[in-house]
Amino acid sequence: MDKKSNYRIIDSQFWLMKVLVYFLLATLFSNLLFGQTTGPEFTVIPLGVLGGGDESNLSSYMVAAGVSDNFVCLDAGTIRFGIRRAIEMGTFRTSESSVMRENIKGYLISHPHLDHVAGLIINSPDDTDKAIYGLPFCIDILKEKYFTWKSWANFADQGDSPALAKYHYVLLDSSLETKIVGTDLYVRPFLLSHASPNLSTAFLIRNNNSYLLYLGDTGADSLENSSRIMSLWKAVSPIVKLHALKAIFVESSFSDEQPLNRLFGHLTPSLLMNELNQLAAFTGKNSLHNLPVVVTHIKPSEKDAVNKIKNELASKNSLELKLVFPEQGIKIEF
Amino acid sequence: MDKKSNYRIIDSQFWLMKVLVYFLLATLFSNLLFGQTTGPEFTVIPLGVLGGGDESNLSSYMVAAGVSDNFVCLDAGTIRFGIRRAIEMGTFRTSESSVMRENIKGYLISHPHLDHVAGLIINSPDDTDKAIYGLPFCIDILKEKYFTWKSWANFADQGDSPALAKYHYVLLDSSLETKIVGTDLYVRPFLLSHASPNLSTAFLIRNNNSYLLYLGDTGADSLENSSRIMSLWKAVSPIVKLHALKAIFVESSFSDEQPLNRLFGHLTPSLLMNELNQLAAFTGKNSLHNLPVVVTHIKPSEKDAVNKIKNELASKNSLELKLVFPEQGIKIEF
Repeated sequence: MDKKSNYRIIDSQFWLMKVLVYFLLATLFSNLLFGQTTGPEFTVIPLGVLGGGDESNLSSYMVAAGVSDNFVCLDAGTIRFGIRRAIEMGTFRTSESSVMRENIKGYLISHPHLDHVAGLIINSPDDTDKAIYGLPFCIDILKEKYFTWKSWANFADQGDSPALAKYHYVLLDSSLETKIVGTDLYVRPFLLSHASPNLSTAFLIRNNNSYLLYLGDTGADSLENSSRIMSLWKAVSPIVKLHALKAIFVESSFSDEQPLNRLFGHLTPSLLMNELNQLAAFTGKNSLHNLPVVVTHIKPSEKDAVNKIKNELASKNSLELKLVFPEQGIKIEF
Repeated sequence: MDKKSNYRIIDSQFWLMKVLVYFLLATLFSNLLFGQTTGPEFTVIPLGVLGGGDESNLSSYMVAAGVSDNFVCLDAGTIRFGIRRAIEMGTFRTSESSVMRENIKGYLISHPHLDHVAGLIINSPDDTDKAIYGLPFCIDILKEKYFTWKSWANFADQGDSPALAKYHYVLLDSSLETKIVGTDLYVRPFLLSHASPNLSTAFLIRNNNSYLLYLGDTGADSLENSSRIMSLWKAVSPIVKLHALKAIFVESSFSDEQPLNRLFGHLTPSLLMNELNQLAAFTGKNSLHNLPVVVTHIKPSEKDAVNKIKNELASKNSLELKLVFPEQGIKIEF
């Protein structure tokens, strides 16, 4: 081997090193850049956060992919008043009507109890054409009980004649992901039990490789004689382990003082933490460390309920979840 | 006749005159006293005053006999938020829960559209036992569509099992006055037409010899091909002539700019004034002079709707009615 060929080997080794260094630097800069410029995977604007009787603040959460202006509404208890509050908070800079008509691209309804649909129905005369997504049990009740010409004009595309067809019912299938038209989001539904035999739904929302899980009202598996929450945890545990699940929205309607026989298909802090420990049993405790758990549907009829429930949850948070208490009109990013 | 007997006659005439003077003075003082100390015949506290999509301010009016603390609620679109506003305004000095549970003795529902019943239904879990009064068409829809265990638990005493029987349905009869239990009020219902064939109700409320008339949503007779408002005016014209009718609550949902084929069973200022002129044709114009007409159900979705409707009504007020625009939580006395 002559001197020249030796140089060639050194040259080639040098070239390889150079490529490696460039690659590492590129990766490093890309990560730095990525960390600095990548926005959230999900933007959530709560339009209503409470259970119970306050008509101005009932369950409804606008969710967008990243920082998009195109939202789907998860439940629709309060719409108009929630948008007004969001505008007052500076979260939106347009009109109430424009947010409802232009920014909300569709509604995902977890279950048809009035406190989860009243805002949608009451505002339907002023709304634009869009889809209402739900499992068949839920859409059936919207058809039979609300958009009926008896309790309200039929603004949907099925049910009692004439169907005005402003809203298009889209039946979800538990075994499939469904695209949310007008957004970059996809949804897969899971059945929940809410004072058996009443049903409710959890929605697993996907943006690219990131997920957000929203549970509608639900009782604990133990009290509902059900394994629906367990099945949900099994299904989502792989994405939890990969840290692809960015947040869980789940209810804690009552404090631990509420008697177990008066829960009406709802959770308390203890029951919620029990269920989340079941999830940890699948994923390992570390996978849940710092996972945002957004606590929904607190019933304010109980005196000082919000603080009581906050304290009870904090005292039982051995999983070190990041507990989030949403406020009407204030944006949350995940 | 001797001199003495002459004196007796003069004495007796004098005595008669004295009695007459005392009587006239007593009557005068009594009237002055009466005018100063007699309170109102009706106290009304609006819990929600608008039509349209604002979940926090939908039709609902608490009405009491005189200054009693015992109210009946005319419609129940917004309950909890309206009570909160009334407390903020100093109208009530107790808790939200106590006003709903103790001061509201029953609900009179004009028609079962969601914007007239949502507050009642959503707050039913926290309410006390009481009656829901309505015409059969209305109670039937409450039974079939709302308190069904599908859209809401059945807190009423009829309909889908189990009937929890917190609420007692009372069927009204158009030919009868019905006592509002827990108050000194009586009610007689009159059918209205609200986008035919949909029905609605006017309630003629009586306290002693005074009356208050509340019309639920209604279209104009001419556009509804109906004579229901005409029949109502005929029935109430005797009490209007006696000035025993203290106020009329009636809707003007849209401004005069709304096309007639897009009224959906509602009134505009022109249509409302036409109808009131029909009443004047029965009673004479002078009988309506200064009669309080409380304008309800303005739909705020139209830009600046409230001012537009106020101006249109004022410009057409040749009857010199006392136009009243109710505000949420602020007491009105009649």
